[in-house]
Amino acid sequence: MSISMHELIRQLREVNTTRIVLLVADGLGGLPIEPGGPTELEKAYTPNLDALVTEGVVGLSTPVAPGITPGSGPGHLGLFGYDPREHQIGRGVLEALGIGVEVGPRDVAIRGNFCTLDEEGRVTDRRAGRIPTETCERLVAKLKQGVRIDGVETLVEPVREYRLVIRFRGDGLGDHVCDTDPLSTGLKTLEPRGGDVASEKTARIAAEFLRQARAILADEHPANFLMMRGFAKFPAIATMEEVYGLKPVAIAVYPMYRGLARLVGMTVVDPGKTLADQMEVARANWDKFDFFFIHYKYTDSTGEDGNFAKKVAMIEALDAEVPKLRALKPDVLIVTGDHSTPSKMRSHSFHPVPTLLWAPATCRPDLVTTFGERPCLEGGLGQFLAKDLLPLALAHAGRLQKFGA
Amino acid sequence: MSISMHELIRQLREVNTTRIVLLVADGLGGLPIEPGGPTELEKAYTPNLDALVTEGVVGLSTPVAPGITPGSGPGHLGLFGYDPREHQIGRGVLEALGIGVEVGPRDVAIRGNFCTLDEEGRVTDRRAGRIPTETCERLVAKLKQGVRIDGVETLVEPVREYRLVIRFRGDGLGDHVCDTDPLSTGLKTLEPRGGDVASEKTARIAAEFLRQARAILADEHPANFLMMRGFAKFPAIATMEEVYGLKPVAIAVYPMYRGLARLVGMTVVDPGKTLADQMEVARANWDKFDFFFIHYKYTDSTGEDGNFAKKVAMIEALDAEVPKLRALKPDVLIVTGDHSTPSKMRSHSFHPVPTLLWAPATCRPDLVTTFGERPCLEGGLGQFLAKDLLPLALAHAGRLQKFGA
Repeated sequence: MSISMHELIRQLREVNTTRIVLLVADGLGGLPIEPGGPTELEKAYTPNLDALVTEGVVGLSTPVAPGITPGSGPGHLGLFGYDPREHQIGRGVLEALGIGVEVGPRDVAIRGNFCTLDEEGRVTDRRAGRIPTETCERLVAKLKQGVRIDGVETLVEPVREYRLVIRFRGDGLGDHVCDTDPLSTGLKTLEPRGGDVASEKTARIAAEFLRQARAILADEHPANFLMMRGFAKFPAIATMEEVYGLKPVAIAVYPMYRGLARLVGMTVVDPGKTLADQMEVARANWDKFDFFFIHYKYTDSTGEDGNFAKKVAMIEALDAEVPKLRALKPDVLIVTGDHSTPSKMRSHSFHPVPTLLWAPATCRPDLVTTFGERPCLEGGLGQFLAKDLLPLALAHAGRLQKFGA
Repeated sequence: MSISMHELIRQLREVNTTRIVLLVADGLGGLPIEPGGPTELEKAYTPNLDALVTEGVVGLSTPVAPGITPGSGPGHLGLFGYDPREHQIGRGVLEALGIGVEVGPRDVAIRGNFCTLDEEGRVTDRRAGRIPTETCERLVAKLKQGVRIDGVETLVEPVREYRLVIRFRGDGLGDHVCDTDPLSTGLKTLEPRGGDVASEKTARIAAEFLRQARAILADEHPANFLMMRGFAKFPAIATMEEVYGLKPVAIAVYPMYRGLARLVGMTVVDPGKTLADQMEVARANWDKFDFFFIHYKYTDSTGEDGNFAKKVAMIEALDAEVPKLRALKPDVLIVTGDHSTPSKMRSHSFHPVPTLLWAPATCRPDLVTTFGERPCLEGGLGQFLAKDLLPLALAHAGRLQKFGA
């Protein structure tokens, strides 16, 4: 039986005053539009990143496993040093994190769908005619006001259109509860059923919630009921402080990434609105933490939009902020992505992610001088799994002792 | 507890009409004869493969693990997306597959050796003087005609010289049966013994087979008996359709590769005789399948012969057929080998295998423009385990959904 990386690091980690910055450009990796052409990152003018590349070491990160396209959850868990194949985050929790609903160890988070029932209680529309978000918000407000369940704290929040999040907070709640969506119209919704004692408790609460909701929504149309899917607890996950001995802070504008950071025990601070704000927040907190996760969304969103030129521009905007990080004199500065989002594909993809690690005191520079997918193929980090990056960061920060004598 | 790649792929796989071609040039990888000289593949003139390399992405495949030289079984299992360290195929099954004997879930396959016994029943020659294949065929014909065992279907087939295959087909047969070969002359052959109830049943059948064979062969010389080795059942292995959602077909001339393909649930079609025939068979079956395994033997056999120039010529002959595959417009076309067979070594070797993946819609091209061991070191696929190639093929074919949200 081989010792796990987490166990090994717990044994070897060492106190140090060094600081690590992890700058995540979401969806950084790309593809050429034309055969022989550049990717977004290769096209972008990035003198500051190129300087880090020249002095540092580069490579390509595979977020989960070869061929696997990650969502934001697995993509970030890997970068935080957790194997995304070991630590899966349930759909309900991700949906909650995505809208800024906190999820803690006593909580079960659930994805809700408003739906339409006929007079016999059969589902006629599983998405309630895709009601507008304002209707969703009005109906959620009615539920908030109306639903009361003894012994559990309920929270309901709108997501958008027909989607909402429900969170139960209480003791001894399990999440092995079946979805109530029958998956086709013409059928009645299913009763929540628990797969173990704790989950039976959750199922009873869910059934009571649905009973009250049905009464509250009875006169609404088309959204006269809701279904529940993806019951999920906060995964039992050791914090970055427990595993790595780090005091981490997240400086992320979007709720999903703040939520993911909380999942691994990061302190979440007010990031401001722009990347320049985030840099200022990092500076202001420089003495309070030793691991700084800074999340930049726009390399992903422009890729999802299929806007190659805009993604190039967003990379250049990122590059322009890099000198502010260098000025803080981190011991280790990593720039990477949680996955690729090629504008050619308008979606997340499985392609490895260009990664640079700059650590002036300890890194072994390679011969690469520009940041890009093809240059990174020549880099000293080679191709590696994302989960191996944090141990490398610790090592470069002088935070790991020798293994064995 | 980490989710296995097969389980992950079962969860993520997606129906698509895309087609994948896996062209296996057996034993493709080689070595230079002279220091500084080219390998067989580097020497060969391969304009069609080079065009695929230029537009696609290349790398080096390690069939099983660093330093491990694979036989055909593990080599192909890796390429079919199965970890050869998890799925081992017994010797008896491989010997049977190699001569075109089918092996199914109710079968136990066994390697047989004709041998010579003295009057006291002691082995004087474990290979019966390496009798010619024609003698083997004559003796096998006698066994076929003479052996009858209640409750089990027996099949006997010659391999070559002193070697034969025995297959028992029946219910509840195990394969934990010891070899009967005493491994030195001067000793009596061993009685078959089973390690569990099902294998005791097999052992009783094997003992009866040997009793009858001894009588049938009593007057023969030098091959007056036989020994049994490598009792093996068909391994319990999920099919490629079950794991990957593919409808695969094997177009392979040699029985071993047809058998290995059957093992993972491929349909095996009549391949014709030449590579040109195989290409035509692929074309004719293009609408019936979505995964095409095409096996080309002569890069291996010329390597085994130590014939560098002939192996170069066989690679060039392969290259000449490549345009026929491109003309079919596959979504993903992979050219690789199941292992290296350097003509310098006249045998399979452990060296990584040059591999190209061409997928015009989805691959991220590297800067490599010629197919060869050294150019592949610069490739975008890096160095990878063969078992990771099929997930990459699925990803490039748009057949895997996003993991997590």
